[in-house]
Amino acid sequence: MYVVCVTVFVKPEKVKEFIEATLENATKTRQEPNNVRFDVLQAEEDPNRFFLYEVYKNPEGFKIHQQTKHYLKWRETIADWMAQPRQGVRHNSIFPEDSDW
Amino acid sequence: MYVVCVTVFVKPEKVKEFIEATLENATKTRQEPNNVRFDVLQAEEDPNRFFLYEVYKNPEGFKIHQQTKHYLKWRETIADWMAQPRQGVRHNSIFPEDSDW
Repeated sequence: MYVVCVTVFVKPEKVKEFIEATLENATKTRQEPNNVRFDVLQAEEDPNRFFLYEVYKNPEGFKIHQQTKHYLKWRETIADWMAQPRQGVRHNSIFPEDSDW
Repeated sequence: MYVVCVTVFVKPEKVKEFIEATLENATKTRQEPNNVRFDVLQAEEDPNRFFLYEVYKNPEGFKIHQQTKHYLKWRETIADWMAQPRQGVRHNSIFPEDSDW
């Protein structure tokens, strides 16, 4: 699997709107044929810190995601709500086996 | 869900051993009743950078994990293989619903 991990620090006054916009993006991304997961997390010690765990069957699936209407809308919508540029790290999975995701 | 995200930078000469020890810990952790996931990832742009995605049903499940024989063994085994202290961030999940994990 190809896993994109994104950390986003959101301006405190925009947290509610960020969650709403991100849930819309997550729900629509889950409908993409190459998407396997899209978990949205909020840090325990900092409610302004979020983590997106995006799993695709392959790198191509992520590239396709980046061209979708819902992703482009989300990216533009939240641009001014971030307290700092978001940090993304791309990974290949080792465990579990691809068949167990 | 309660999700612990751990980033580990491993000394290049210890990557193979680190993967082996971590897979043993991941496999045994998956058998804990409160564990839901334990994904092991390797960064695309840095093969010495790893990411552990640990999902428990609740914070208590994570506390119990930290007392297990396999976790304590892993922690001791890999201690000298890290290039820098590992970074852990604890989260509460927002999406998907708990029933969909």
